[in-house]
Order: sequence, then C-alpha cells, then structure tokens
Amino acid sequence: MPAVTYEHIKTCKQSGARLGIVHTPHGSFETPMFMPVGTLATVKTMSPDELIEMNAQIILSNTYHLWLRPGEDIIKEAGGLHKFMNWDRPILTDSGGFQVFSLSDLRNISEDGVEFRNHLSGEKLFLTPEKSMQIQNDLGPDIMMAFDECPPYPAEFDYMKASVERTSRWAERCLEAHGRPQDQGLFGIVQGGEYPELRKQSAEDLVSLDFPGYAIGGLSVGEPKDVMNQVLEETMPFLPADKPRYLMGVGSADSLIDGAIRGVDMFDCVLPTRIARNGTLMTSSGRLVVRNAKFARDFRPLDENCSCSVCRNYSRAYIRHLIKSNEMLGLRLCSYHNLYFLLQLMENVREAIRQDRLLDYREEFFEAYGFNKPNAKNF
Amino acid sequence: MPAVTYEHIKTCKQSGARLGIVHTPHGSFETPMFMPVGTLATVKTMSPDELIEMNAQIILSNTYHLWLRPGEDIIKEAGGLHKFMNWDRPILTDSGGFQVFSLSDLRNISEDGVEFRNHLSGEKLFLTPEKSMQIQNDLGPDIMMAFDECPPYPAEFDYMKASVERTSRWAERCLEAHGRPQDQGLFGIVQGGEYPELRKQSAEDLVSLDFPGYAIGGLSVGEPKDVMNQVLEETMPFLPADKPRYLMGVGSADSLIDGAIRGVDMFDCVLPTRIARNGTLMTSSGRLVVRNAKFARDFRPLDENCSCSVCRNYSRAYIRHLIKSNEMLGLRLCSYHNLYFLLQLMENVREAIRQDRLLDYREEFFEAYGFNKPNAKNF
Repeated sequence: MPAVTYEHIKTCKQSGARLGIVHTPHGSFETPMFMPVGTLATVKTMSPDELIEMNAQIILSNTYHLWLRPGEDIIKEAGGLHKFMNWDRPILTDSGGFQVFSLSDLRNISEDGVEFRNHLSGEKLFLTPEKSMQIQNDLGPDIMMAFDECPPYPAEFDYMKASVERTSRWAERCLEAHGRPQDQGLFGIVQGGEYPELRKQSAEDLVSLDFPGYAIGGLSVGEPKDVMNQVLEETMPFLPADKPRYLMGVGSADSLIDGAIRGVDMFDCVLPTRIARNGTLMTSSGRLVVRNAKFARDFRPLDENCSCSVCRNYSRAYIRHLIKSNEMLGLRLCSYHNLYFLLQLMENVREAIRQDRLLDYREEFFEAYGFNKPNAKNF
Repeated sequence: MPAVTYEHIKTCKQSGARLGIVHTPHGSFETPMFMPVGTLATVKTMSPDELIEMNAQIILSNTYHLWLRPGEDIIKEAGGLHKFMNWDRPILTDSGGFQVFSLSDLRNISEDGVEFRNHLSGEKLFLTPEKSMQIQNDLGPDIMMAFDECPPYPAEFDYMKASVERTSRWAERCLEAHGRPQDQGLFGIVQGGEYPELRKQSAEDLVSLDFPGYAIGGLSVGEPKDVMNQVLEETMPFLPADKPRYLMGVGSADSLIDGAIRGVDMFDCVLPTRIARNGTLMTSSGRLVVRNAKFARDFRPLDENCSCSVCRNYSRAYIRHLIKSNEMLGLRLCSYHNLYFLLQLMENVREAIRQDRLLDYREEFFEAYGFNKPNAKNF
C-alpha cells in the first residue's frame, strides 16, 4: 500500500471536475484543495491553531529554504517537520528545484544536478535528485516532490525537449534514492512548457514510473491564463485517473476554479499571504485595498459575505489603522482572511461538484468578483 | 457610585502587600495586577483571544498615539476603544503627558498646557488637561489618567516643586473637564521625583480632590531600584487605603514583586513585549536569549516550569529558527510567553499574599531568577 492514495468520490457532470480524498500518513484531505504555503516551517504570521480553525487540511513547506535554515539535520533531530512546527496534519514539500532556478542568479546545470549560490550567504551549493530526496526524507513530509528542472518561460522547443528528458531521468533517480517510500509519497512533476507533444512525452515518461501522484509544473510563470488552461487540457488526458493531480504555484481565485474544472486536485501559492501583508484582501466582491483612505471610517467587515473570525470581529477601519501603523496584528488579520477565503472557495467548489453545477458556480463567482469586467485583475 | 471602585480582600501579614479587586464598567480585575500595553489599540503581535487565553484582565492603551493615529474621532465613531479593537474587558488609557514629554524634542510648557511637535508629521499640536480629557472621553476606557507634567530625572528641587504644583492645578482642571464620570474613573498622578516632601505634597493635593484611584508617576525613568522602592515607601502612607494604587511604567519581575510589597495594586510596561520582539525571554530561571547559537538543537520549551501554550507546543530550537528568520510567528510566540510569564507571576504574588508569605515567595523567586547574583540583570 503506497503512503499516499487517491480516493475518487465523484465527477461533476456539468464540468468534469473531480471530487476526491487524498489519504496520507498524517490523515486525509478533501480535493480540490488549496494548500497554504509555510516556506520556513511557518505559514507567515499564522499559528497552527489558526490554520486548523480555518480548516487548512494540508500545508506546503519549502525544501530549499529549510535546507539553508535551520538545516534539515536539526529538523530531523526534532523528530521531523510536523513535530518541529507543531503541525499534525499532512505536509507537502517541494523539491527545491523551483527555488534553485528562481532565487539564484548564478547556477550551473549538469546531468548530475545544479550548482548554485545560496541566496543568503553566497556559499556555493550543489543540489541533485539524490540530495533533494535525502533532505525531504529527513524533513519527513507526507508528500515529497521529485527534483525537476524548471525551465524559463518562454523556452525554445529544443531546450525544452532536452529539459523534459533530463527531468524524466532525474525522476527515475529520485524514485531510486527515495529512502522512505512506506512513509512518504513521492510525486512526479510533468514539464514541457506550452508544447503539447512535450507535455505528453513528460507525462508518459513519469506515468511509466508509477508515482503515487503527479504535479503539473512550469505554469504560473508569466504565461497568459488561456495558455495555462490549454496546457492543463492537453496534459490531463495522459495522467491516470486514480492518482492526485497538483497544479504548482497557482493561487488566484479564477485559476483555482478553472484548474478544478480541468481536473486539478491540489493547488498552492504564496499569493493570499503575500498580498495580505500589503493590506490587499480577497473578498466575494473582488479585491479590497484596505489601506485606502475611503476605509478610514468604514466599520463594516472586510467581506460582508464572509463568516471568518476576522470578518466577525473586526472592521475595515480598525484593520486599516493597524496596517497603516505597521502593527503585526494587521498582517495577521489580513493573512487569516485571505487564507480562509481561498479555503472557503475550495469548499464551495467541492460543493458545486457534488451538485454537478461547477460551471454555474464559476459564472456566479466570476460575476460577483468582477473577473467578467474588462481590465479585471488576476485576483 | 463611582465608575471605578476598589474592594480590599486582605493584607499579607508577612509583607503588608494588598490583595484586592478593582471593579469597572467592563468587569473586574484582581490586584496586584500587571496590565499589558496596547499602544495603538493592539498589544503588539497579540490578538484579543490570546490575551484572554493568558487571562489578561485589563490592558492599557495610549492616548497620545491614538490621538495621532487613527484619531479619537474615528474610535468614538466606532463605538469606543473596546469595540474598535474587539476587547470587552477593562481598559486604562494614559493621559498623553508622558509621550508628549518623552517623544517630542520640541515642546513648550505653559500653565495652559504643552505645545509640541507630532513625532510622525512634525505638525505643531497643543495638549492641555481639557484636551486630554476630551480625547479620553471619546476613546471611552474604564480608567482615564489625569494630564500631568512628567519632569526629567533628576530634576532640581525648585523645578520639581513648581512642576508638582502645576500638576495639582492641572488635576483639578481634569476633574472639572471630565465629561463622563459615571462611565469612566479618572485617576490622579502623584509626582515629586525623589523628594519626600514633594511626594507628600503631591499626594495630599490629589487626595483632597478625591479621585477614585491614584498613580505614582515619574518612576522607572532611570533612577536606581532602591530609589524607586524608597519613593514608594515615602508616598504610600499618604494614599487612601480604599482606592487602587498604580505604579506607572514598571514591568521588570523584581520591581513588580517589590512594588506589591510596598502596597502597589497595578503595573504596566512595554518591557515584556519589547524584549520579546528581540528574542529575549523571561523564564523562571532568569532571562534567555533564544537567538543564541547554543539553542539551535535545544528541543526543550522556553521555560521548563511554564505551562503556557508556547511552552507546551514549541521548542527553543524552533523559536530560535523563527526569530533568526524574521518570521512573525517567532515574535508572537515570544510576546505571548513573556506576557503569560508576568501575568502568572502576579497570580503567584496574589497567592503568596493569600498565604501571608510574599517575602518568602520573593526570596524563592529572586534566587531562581538570579536576581541575587552580583551583576543580575534588571529583568
């Protein structure tokens, strides 16, 4: 029995979206699901109690960041990431690949792995499929990600083809090096940019290796929304229906709904917490920049249709005051609300799938949020 | 019936410390009590729920800061400070006097009041006893403080005498200007520096005006600890036994115990939250600087004798990692622990009074904390 399994509940008759449950050693989570990001073993500004209160069912943490700080050896000695950070529900870690490619200017890719400079100290480091597996085995998340090459967008066909093939060879090395398959499920990552034949090739390579789950990587890297949707449509047919599908780095409300419609089960993104720390809120009627002067005497909740503890207890005027005064409680309240908003959105998506009406729900949500307006923002 | 009353429960036979209850429009709090400081209508990094969880029974907020941001008119419009910040227990506000004297370089004191420059905008402002009362009436705390002159330490006798007399005249004007005596109790502030005859004069002046409570001001401004204790001993005999006594700006563990022994009922200070944000913890065995490298693999709680939720759930190694990584959860956990520590200390002090053994408790606490060592730190 693999460490991570997917239980299919039903398919939305209207949209084709999947309702399911992913089972892991630290419990199960419903899908489609959004995973809050806890880069450095903490979802920024939030406590584990608050994440449980908002019913976060799984969180993500970052291998690259934890490798550098505090070091995976310390976390292993603590008894693993769950114990270190006091989070007893499922955790997924990425492979470190994305950060190596996005955070470091100086890097040198070879068949063996990637040499790069630590973005904190400047020290030279080398990350390989084997090293990524060792770190993730030490961290002990329920779901690990294979170490892949994250090519730039856009990339030439020939470069992308070579990259996809290397990613497949690295995936095989990851499976080989994975030391705890009974405790941790390892997901493969489909690459291939916007080239349908490369997505197909990548998916088929990885599926032949029989991972317990598959991610779609290399999206949300600057491409237009319709490219993302098209790539999803071209890739999904090659992924097995009995394994979970994870769209990496996507967290805008419209993309979560559009991804679910195309068969995605899992999402993650720093967007809700990052914009929160700037005082930007996701609400049922679109985004709200609470710093704005017009909210100084607005004693309504951030979102009048939201039932989160922030919207039940605090006003726009108070939260604006906190944000303007650089008070940390302001960052907490905004982060809490945005995470709650996306988790609630996914609950609504799951309910719409149950009722075979996700396309209708999409229309209602897009209309209220303002996505249907010309010049609509991406969140 | 005044808005604020003091109920005396008992006097410690060993130390003379008082056990009591202060009743206010938003409920009662036990004394001796430490009040966490919520300068800008938030106890830095903490939520009201957390303050209730640690059993904070009253908090303090700052008139000067709230006057400038967001403005007392907005808070009045919100329904008062309790509603604005979602805190339903007692609140005390200071008068703004201390901040006017400590935060602004340019100030001009006249019989009418103090002209000074806003430390944020540089704008010229004028604070008077009447203005301070109006702001505090608008904010709506349970306990307001009279607007006093806060002289520098040390100050010449003649300067101090003139200042004390002005503070008495200002106190009378405050009483006169106080618009909501049924809803809010106004405390007088005894000044006089380290001159016993001026402390006596100040106390007698104010007691003749019959305030529902009295503060001892002008301490914890750089004088040695024994001067503070001596001033308390010289002042207390002139304060009525049936009114609460508040020592302003004091929050080090030793001074809380030594103040209680000298008859103080209420204390406040930013110390526990300020040092927390730097990763410095108060523990039963003395202070702990969690940033230190020696805690990198220390999986014990911050304080092995503490039962707060931080000590029950997190290790020194994890908190060190958060503080080193500038993660806000680190500031939250350290702030929570330090506030809990002082609130628990006051609970222990009250229990020792009940058992007529506060001097014994002092010895035990000082010994464990390390205050009895030569070179002991002040907290």
